[in-house]
Amino acid sequence: MSNDTLQLRRIAIDTYHENVAYLHRECGLYRAEGFQALSKIQVNVNGSKVLAVLNVVDDTAIVQPNELGLSEQAFAQLNATEGSLVTVDHAEPSTSMDAVRRKINGERLDQEDFTSITNDIVAARYSKMEMAAFLVATGQNNLDRDEMLYLTRAMLQSGDRMDWHEALVADKHCIGGIPGNRTSMLVVPIVAAHGMLIPKTSSRAITSPAGTADTMEMLAEVNLTPAQLHNIVRQERGCLAWGGTAKLAPVDDMLISVERPLGIDSQGQMVASILSKKLAAGSTHLIIDIPVGPTAKVRQMRQALALRKLFEFVADRLNIHLEVMITDGRQPVGRGIGPMLEARDVMQVLQNDPDAPADLRQKSLHLAGRIIEFDPDVRGGQGYAIARDILESGRALAKMNALIQAQGARSIDFHPSALCQEITADSEGVVIAIDNFQMAKIARLAGAPMMKKAGVDLLKKLGNSVKKGDVLYRIYAEFPADFKFAQQLAAHNNGYGIGNEEQMLTSPITF
Amino acid sequence: MSNDTLQLRRIAIDTYHENVAYLHRECGLYRAEGFQALSKIQVNVNGSKVLAVLNVVDDTAIVQPNELGLSEQAFAQLNATEGSLVTVDHAEPSTSMDAVRRKINGERLDQEDFTSITNDIVAARYSKMEMAAFLVATGQNNLDRDEMLYLTRAMLQSGDRMDWHEALVADKHCIGGIPGNRTSMLVVPIVAAHGMLIPKTSSRAITSPAGTADTMEMLAEVNLTPAQLHNIVRQERGCLAWGGTAKLAPVDDMLISVERPLGIDSQGQMVASILSKKLAAGSTHLIIDIPVGPTAKVRQMRQALALRKLFEFVADRLNIHLEVMITDGRQPVGRGIGPMLEARDVMQVLQNDPDAPADLRQKSLHLAGRIIEFDPDVRGGQGYAIARDILESGRALAKMNALIQAQGARSIDFHPSALCQEITADSEGVVIAIDNFQMAKIARLAGAPMMKKAGVDLLKKLGNSVKKGDVLYRIYAEFPADFKFAQQLAAHNNGYGIGNEEQMLTSPITF
Repeated sequence: MSNDTLQLRRIAIDTYHENVAYLHRECGLYRAEGFQALSKIQVNVNGSKVLAVLNVVDDTAIVQPNELGLSEQAFAQLNATEGSLVTVDHAEPSTSMDAVRRKINGERLDQEDFTSITNDIVAARYSKMEMAAFLVATGQNNLDRDEMLYLTRAMLQSGDRMDWHEALVADKHCIGGIPGNRTSMLVVPIVAAHGMLIPKTSSRAITSPAGTADTMEMLAEVNLTPAQLHNIVRQERGCLAWGGTAKLAPVDDMLISVERPLGIDSQGQMVASILSKKLAAGSTHLIIDIPVGPTAKVRQMRQALALRKLFEFVADRLNIHLEVMITDGRQPVGRGIGPMLEARDVMQVLQNDPDAPADLRQKSLHLAGRIIEFDPDVRGGQGYAIARDILESGRALAKMNALIQAQGARSIDFHPSALCQEITADSEGVVIAIDNFQMAKIARLAGAPMMKKAGVDLLKKLGNSVKKGDVLYRIYAEFPADFKFAQQLAAHNNGYGIGNEEQMLTSPITF
Repeated sequence: MSNDTLQLRRIAIDTYHENVAYLHRECGLYRAEGFQALSKIQVNVNGSKVLAVLNVVDDTAIVQPNELGLSEQAFAQLNATEGSLVTVDHAEPSTSMDAVRRKINGERLDQEDFTSITNDIVAARYSKMEMAAFLVATGQNNLDRDEMLYLTRAMLQSGDRMDWHEALVADKHCIGGIPGNRTSMLVVPIVAAHGMLIPKTSSRAITSPAGTADTMEMLAEVNLTPAQLHNIVRQERGCLAWGGTAKLAPVDDMLISVERPLGIDSQGQMVASILSKKLAAGSTHLIIDIPVGPTAKVRQMRQALALRKLFEFVADRLNIHLEVMITDGRQPVGRGIGPMLEARDVMQVLQNDPDAPADLRQKSLHLAGRIIEFDPDVRGGQGYAIARDILESGRALAKMNALIQAQGARSIDFHPSALCQEITADSEGVVIAIDNFQMAKIARLAGAPMMKKAGVDLLKKLGNSVKKGDVLYRIYAEFPADFKFAQQLAAHNNGYGIGNEEQMLTSPITF
């Protein structure tokens, strides 16, 4: 062992999107405290390097004085084995932090600034604090639309880009915030059955109770290699896969891991995040779904229109054909909230089950119809009828079954979790409000999306009449601790508003 | 063991101003991943609770599936022993984060907002990300002077407040950024020898190569209990102690731990930080030293004047008599940079050694003179002469020796570290610039302040003539790794500018 090296050790601690290094306080080679105040160190091994925040350790069972420990994330970034000899340096502050500080000062950044920032983030040179500083500095109304364009371009360039070698690659995306909104799982089979290319990659839920990837995973494999993905898309004209295996705009995922816990929701970040991901996925034609409602992300119609203009501005300059649909976001879509319950709703619609949730069916047909009208051979206004025909004829179900087989079918079991509580109405009247945010939180505490069969199943929706004691919804949970958390939250606020017909009709937003 | 509890375990990891909890991935009671995406959990034991960021562990040597581990910081905040039974809850987001988000939106916050934010920070309810969000949102020009007042008051109220029961309690503070600027260690003995009360508490260096507490610690104990502090001040009229044992404006230290690594330097935070600490220390009369120079924190005279007005505005409303002195910040003060070398300079001045650094002596006499003029019995303009008389007569040295004895003398050894490199001039001319920031960084890499005898000793100052090969300064280090880091930095940029006499005289700032 050379006299300025330490032995690399993998520390089995998952530090969630932040690199952490562990150095024993009695390390004879480097002064642990000296490094710590400076916040970050650089670990070098065999020509590769990684930056990490330093934790000082007083327990040789975790790390020995002659060792340098790295958290799982940091270790994975180094192409090295345990026991490799490493050296440690003071990390130079990322030069792009100068640009972040200029933004904090109120300056306008240019394309080069955004590119250097995203390059440093994707190389894991930013701590979570630094990412938070960037997000706050560029948050809310602090980015003009040109800067949104620069940020989108920089995020796009941070990763790989797919090329489908076709003139029309369709996609859809919802800005989120509405539980149960699993329209992609209906739109993709309908559009692919029409013959258009729709290679849909989706995210897993981060702070919501289910993502499309989590829900599709109830029916089929979603972790596909890029090669598998391409083969399935060539054969079936579509797919419903998890987007995480392809390295598409990776900086987006890293920023989201900081943005969500901070509860920062900035339009500039949203536009850049969505468009960079879609462009990286090779989309040429895109529908953006903006739900509006009192508990949706966008609460006023005028805000939805302003957001639409921003999407259009950036999309036009990045050569993607984009259309925005403003939709009803006053309540969850469908009945189930949670991967299994949402998969059940989707299959009911595909099977033309008379009990299938009508709102999920209608919304999906509208979205699919708009996408089908991207087809130059389809006459304007005919998309909806074509989509409905594909669904009612069973061709959408057949396409979904083909996708499931191609991706790898999983055994389907639509029995929810065993722990169940019914939440009932405490007065008579009409359901005049359902709080999207509260319902998502209850489902989340109940265990969704990690516990796939947990969640919330809505029995009453807006406009339904209820008597005192009628069941509004059921909570399903797998773990007693989760069950307790969800019950406590529902007891505190069950998320439903019961009133009279008149209150329902005077809702400020109508669709 | 009850069926919803885990056993508390202290994890010997120092996570530096952030609470971290460790849960085994296979914990049967709580789903570790479910908690992790939400970023923070609440750990409850015997009615007390602590919030922590969650790390998921895959190694039972660190934490067992039936245990809940806490980092040293988090464990210390719970009044509990290892093995205590704890429960875990989802942490409710701090309600004061709503105010932070309003600030991000560009709104103006009121006193109540700032109070709830500082209360949450001091109770360790903010993650570092959240503190970064607060600092960026309130950074740079985002606080008006009323908000600075509110923030100062809120930070003051976050901790204890000393009361000296005298009408005139003097203090001084420098805004920082100038290496070697150890005037407090001269001002305190002079002012105390005059008979004024000057109970000086200082910080340790965080990102600088030496703080007053680190330097005084070369000569005497500085970790004094509040009771010791009071006794010494009563007896000697002054002290030179570390401020960390008294809980004065504790939120300040927590914010600094995020602010410094981010390199954010906001005027509002600076004013609130300094004034809250001084008010908490019971000061009634305060001199603020604002050095100005091309590599000082304040680079232009007009910026110094604007900063002076902010200090005056807040101080006037919080009933502290404040005067600002704008001083020469074009180069380090004295010769030594690092605790031992700076202590040596101070003792040379006190001993009226003809080789003592003249700039440190002059500056300290000016500051002490201004403070002495706070004394109603001293005629305006006489302070400097009184201070000089106290120094030249040996009364300042006698007072310093009395303080050293009272605090607890330490054996003094002014031999620097053994590893030494001389940095020489590579051309003939006059020293026209010394970069404060670069000299601090070289001293810091060499090991200061943790390695007390490490640092930099300047042999040439502004205006000195040098020949090629003349020694500009010496680097001293204790550890080979530190020595290498410091040498590399000095080789890259030695921090000195050599030019001709004319360039020296056309410096844009003159004193």
